Amino acid sequence: MNKSKIAVLGSGIMATALTFPLAENGHEVHLVGTHLDRDIIDSIKKTGIHPNLGLKIPSTVKAYQLEEIEEAFEGADVAMSGVNSFGVDWVGEQLAKVVKPGMMVLSITKGMQADEDGNLYILPDIIKKYFTKDLVDSVTWSAVVGPSIAGEVAVKRDTCVVFCGEDQESLDKLAHMFRTDYYHVWTSTDFVGMEVAAATKNIYAFAAGFNEGIRDKNKEENDRYVRFNYGSAVFAQGQVELTQFMQLLSDNKTLSPRHLLVGSGDMFVTSMGGRNVKAGRYVGAGIPFSEVRDNYMKGVTMEGVAAIRVIGGAMEPLTKRGIIKESDFPLLRHLYDIIVNDQPLNMPWEKFFDGEK
Amino acid sequence: MNKSKIAVLGSGIMATALTFPLAENGHEVHLVGTHLDRDIIDSIKKTGIHPNLGLKIPSTVKAYQLEEIEEAFEGADVAMSGVNSFGVDWVGEQLAKVVKPGMMVLSITKGMQADEDGNLYILPDIIKKYFTKDLVDSVTWSAVVGPSIAGEVAVKRDTCVVFCGEDQESLDKLAHMFRTDYYHVWTSTDFVGMEVAAATKNIYAFAAGFNEGIRDKNKEENDRYVRFNYGSAVFAQGQVELTQFMQLLSDNKTLSPRHLLVGSGDMFVTSMGGRNVKAGRYVGAGIPFSEVRDNYMKGVTMEGVAAIRVIGGAMEPLTKRGIIKESDFPLLRHLYDIIVNDQPLNMPWEKFFDGEK
Repeated sequence: MNKSKIAVLGSGIMATALTFPLAENGHEVHLVGTHLDRDIIDSIKKTGIHPNLGLKIPSTVKAYQLEEIEEAFEGADVAMSGVNSFGVDWVGEQLAKVVKPGMMVLSITKGMQADEDGNLYILPDIIKKYFTKDLVDSVTWSAVVGPSIAGEVAVKRDTCVVFCGEDQESLDKLAHMFRTDYYHVWTSTDFVGMEVAAATKNIYAFAAGFNEGIRDKNKEENDRYVRFNYGSAVFAQGQVELTQFMQLLSDNKTLSPRHLLVGSGDMFVTSMGGRNVKAGRYVGAGIPFSEVRDNYMKGVTMEGVAAIRVIGGAMEPLTKRGIIKESDFPLLRHLYDIIVNDQPLNMPWEKFFDGEK
Repeated sequence: MNKSKIAVLGSGIMATALTFPLAENGHEVHLVGTHLDRDIIDSIKKTGIHPNLGLKIPSTVKAYQLEEIEEAFEGADVAMSGVNSFGVDWVGEQLAKVVKPGMMVLSITKGMQADEDGNLYILPDIIKKYFTKDLVDSVTWSAVVGPSIAGEVAVKRDTCVVFCGEDQESLDKLAHMFRTDYYHVWTSTDFVGMEVAAATKNIYAFAAGFNEGIRDKNKEENDRYVRFNYGSAVFAQGQVELTQFMQLLSDNKTLSPRHLLVGSGDMFVTSMGGRNVKAGRYVGAGIPFSEVRDNYMKGVTMEGVAAIRVIGGAMEPLTKRGIIKESDFPLLRHLYDIIVNDQPLNMPWEKFFDGEK
């Protein structure tokens, strides 16, 4: 196999975990910390250990502080954006300075942004805004999506993902670089549909906490019967709305097997736990979201909540413009009401599944 | 609301749980035990308590032993089949004697049967075989599908289901009889598609136990990183194959919101636990299925395992006939190998999601 050089900006757990299969395949990997990652990079330089991942990273992966970014990206075949959705504008600015024609840009950030008219954009489009038109056209754009908990990749647990993007040849090259006997990679050129599925599933992770919260409120912890029926119906309505988002924004209108991996599989793993589920649990227990945000989970980054704010905020302009119907996305609209208008949880069941009749 | 009379054959937990919303709506409900339910009916007659459900059933529900079936079904508007998939032929024989023209037959049994050529039949079609042609045509056929744990319905936890069948008017009437503020009912005339989704999801519940079993085998119980990536990929491939089954057997080719409730939602809840998941966990831990069946879970009814045997057994004849491709249903084919040929678990990842490339 030809060896490639991969430079990564952002040394969070997901970006770092992806260096494991790359190192295993013998590639040269340069991991660059953001200004927020200074301690992580220091730790790796000193001990080889990524503190949040709790693991020694492969010895061939070379760590760089942000001021060394130019050296790190010099001559790279692949430029990876490894920050979370809050850092995507910043990463666009940075990459604009170090990405060179011919590189393959690979994004692992899940999320979307909206403008005032409710138009929704996938995050690679946000990064592109910071590039010159020539540079945009002289590189290829791809992203990693699918159900993938970072630490599991790092400790070589079986993981199935999709590399999506505009250019099949780049996707094939990238997939080849990353594939191991535990990291299974498929490809798709439905860039927008896949990115939309990956972004919207976070929304519904917040709702996945409600049933446990209702149990907390009603002190049902020793009750023989739980609320799986509630949770599975919410999961299914999440699937309905995720599918509709894909159909709305992508030219691809059907749920292919790989869309099911990215939409259904990723929503499944995200529903199993995490910060968004925890926030939803508090709301299910009857605590107004403003209190969850300001007290119970003060300072905690919640990408699902951010996605509800962004994508939920697009509902009104999109409805006014006649692009979606008032009856579309009833769950997201209710989640938006909970988060932005501090409304109590009151699940609008009758609006689900195309409306009860 | 007009009051109706509903007679139910089978007094297992699901059939009995459904008498709760019916009784709440003021309908007359007759619950008839099978020959295996004698103790349950005795208990209800004496104390009002259903022993397996652990609950007092509504006082207006009248319990009958099997020898009283004719009295119980006399003048009923609805004849419910409330047994599990192993009892469906027996229930056909019994209902053939007591169902009268004009009744609405409602099935809650999930499963399929196959003939030697691999043709698959939904269970209402099996019941029909025991009816005269005239009787088949003089009643209507419907079924209850969707994510619904029996006990949760009985204790009034929110539950979303689909009533599917051939006749919209009957579906509307039945939905009206059952709907309460916690039992939410949608309808669909894709009888076959919905029944296939409900039947096949049990198959994949068995596979949902593998990841925990691998953890058991590797003694990873205190490990920071679990195997959610594995579980979610298996869940997603289950969704792929369930979808393909629906497309194969139903005229309806797209996943509507209600199909997602019945397919995706029900597979979600089934994956959360139960006997099929437990059996899969043993296999994941490295125990041959024959030992699980004969020792660890001797005598335990496993509908998912039965479904793998029946539906998995249809793979070979359907492939020979050119109706499906060799590469279709790789997960089900492997589950069949595990259960019927006692093969060890060795997940064929590269065949998933239309084949890795």
